[in-house]
Amino acid sequence: MSIRIGILGYGNLGRGVECALQLNPDMELAAVFTRRAPEQVSILTKSASVCAVEEAIQWKDKIDVMILCGGSAKDLPVQSPEFVKMFNIVDSFDTHAHIPEHFEKVHAAAKEHNHIGIISVGWDPGMFSLNRMYANAILPEGQDYTFWGKGVSQGHSDAVRRIEGVKDARQYTIPIETALERVRNGENPNLTTREKHLRECFVVLEEGADPAKVEQEIKTMPNYFADYDTIVHFISMEELQEQHSQLPHGGLVLRSGKTGMEKEHGHIIEYRLKLDSNPEFTSCVIAAYARAAYRLSQEGQTGCRTVFDIAPAYLSARSGEELRASML
Amino acid sequence: MSIRIGILGYGNLGRGVECALQLNPDMELAAVFTRRAPEQVSILTKSASVCAVEEAIQWKDKIDVMILCGGSAKDLPVQSPEFVKMFNIVDSFDTHAHIPEHFEKVHAAAKEHNHIGIISVGWDPGMFSLNRMYANAILPEGQDYTFWGKGVSQGHSDAVRRIEGVKDARQYTIPIETALERVRNGENPNLTTREKHLRECFVVLEEGADPAKVEQEIKTMPNYFADYDTIVHFISMEELQEQHSQLPHGGLVLRSGKTGMEKEHGHIIEYRLKLDSNPEFTSCVIAAYARAAYRLSQEGQTGCRTVFDIAPAYLSARSGEELRASML
Repeated sequence: MSIRIGILGYGNLGRGVECALQLNPDMELAAVFTRRAPEQVSILTKSASVCAVEEAIQWKDKIDVMILCGGSAKDLPVQSPEFVKMFNIVDSFDTHAHIPEHFEKVHAAAKEHNHIGIISVGWDPGMFSLNRMYANAILPEGQDYTFWGKGVSQGHSDAVRRIEGVKDARQYTIPIETALERVRNGENPNLTTREKHLRECFVVLEEGADPAKVEQEIKTMPNYFADYDTIVHFISMEELQEQHSQLPHGGLVLRSGKTGMEKEHGHIIEYRLKLDSNPEFTSCVIAAYARAAYRLSQEGQTGCRTVFDIAPAYLSARSGEELRASML
Repeated sequence: MSIRIGILGYGNLGRGVECALQLNPDMELAAVFTRRAPEQVSILTKSASVCAVEEAIQWKDKIDVMILCGGSAKDLPVQSPEFVKMFNIVDSFDTHAHIPEHFEKVHAAAKEHNHIGIISVGWDPGMFSLNRMYANAILPEGQDYTFWGKGVSQGHSDAVRRIEGVKDARQYTIPIETALERVRNGENPNLTTREKHLRECFVVLEEGADPAKVEQEIKTMPNYFADYDTIVHFISMEELQEQHSQLPHGGLVLRSGKTGMEKEHGHIIEYRLKLDSNPEFTSCVIAAYARAAYRLSQEGQTGCRTVFDIAPAYLSARSGEELRASML
């Protein structure tokens, strides 16, 4: 019998999870839960239901793992502790500073209702965190570096869109190659914000807007752009839609460490992602952890978990024997 | 109280483990066990004992984890199942084809004697295996690539040394950059052995040996060189000792996969190691898994484990709370 999955929230991430499930024959989509009117939401999986969020409780025994696809700002802080009372859940809570608090809330609810909740799954937090952690455990003396991109930052694109005179915009975060090479060469540089990433914006103006003024406003925006070198291009709506409608992303986690009695040997551990679709890749990580949630729950485990707490083999559809024979 | 470690076998790897323990203040070296006369073995850690292998049994209650630093061909197949009767153990058994059999033997002995045995720890098998496994679980549809180098292959260096007229030799395995770039570009190429790696040999001849004959013998040697493009340099013993006395290594594990309803999005996961000292890095991985072995054993767990079976957090000296706050 396959693992029955529910999806809560059918945006980019929810659709990505739906795609990911098709790649994993041991899992099936049971239902999508939406805050919109269900009859107005059309999903790709013909065998699955579309339901209102309020109906979720009726699916308590028909769903093994509920995947929460809402946002970290407003949805997940409320939904994760709520839904883990009814279901095993996986979320992609990504506000790094609030993870400890989120963990505690999900843990308490999960323990009380005998479910598993796996939080902060994706690539950062997620696979990047895992790689930071493994690399730090292996090389206790060293320095960590994380670079993001080249990829679309939704937050920065939104920030540009809020400027008066901007009709639409897309912002790419780009790691600076020379900085990256210095890290790879074991130089252990101290890099400023400006030295690590470049920001590139593609902007469609409203009719009559002043490009010089918009460009100035972007480049001096605190937190988002002021600390970076930023390139601004003005383009047509057609060009934006044709050339910049995808959501690629990626990045690199590196650790540069030393070993030897005199610390005479340097080592570089590098983990790199190059993703055509940020939400679809995130969804694939989530799907693998949904399998883990199901298995942990089958073993009778309860409480909140992160990627640090889950043995890798739980993610794979293959048995321990198969894994040892084929991948070790 | 720190975790008390024993080292069995004091070669490159044993010395590497000794160095690694100095980077991990929660562990201490209790004793080194050697087949040589103990009084002839001088170790770096003044506080630790040097003992004959036969004395190991007397250390049963004074060592928490014994790290086996012998070879995979002859030592570990015998030692791992034997020593796991007395101790929790970690080994670096690296004969991929025989891992399932080794696992079963260690598992049976570990279960019977209530110990933990973690086998095949290092970087390949080890960190490379982990990355293959995670990447396959995340991207079920895709292709795997492993490249080794640039680094010294002991096996290939030994093979060259066995040729008549060769006094000493060092062989470097080098990944071919163009092949690597094709993989990174998502081309999913089918690569032959020759297309993936180059072999470069630095050879010191015996007096009077014929370089042309030696070069021909190297390049046509079945299994080791015949399927590769091989470059041979003849150098002096001085140059070999000055320029080629280190044991650097490394390599890359890549997975190239597709997602999307039409498989329209490509993703590349890349894990890369660049190591100044192969044995010291391997030792650092082993030290982290020794910590895991100790903790699993403290929890009352028994049996054989591989890197697939161990939750990442067990490797880190930090608590779950610290990890969530600092690395997630």
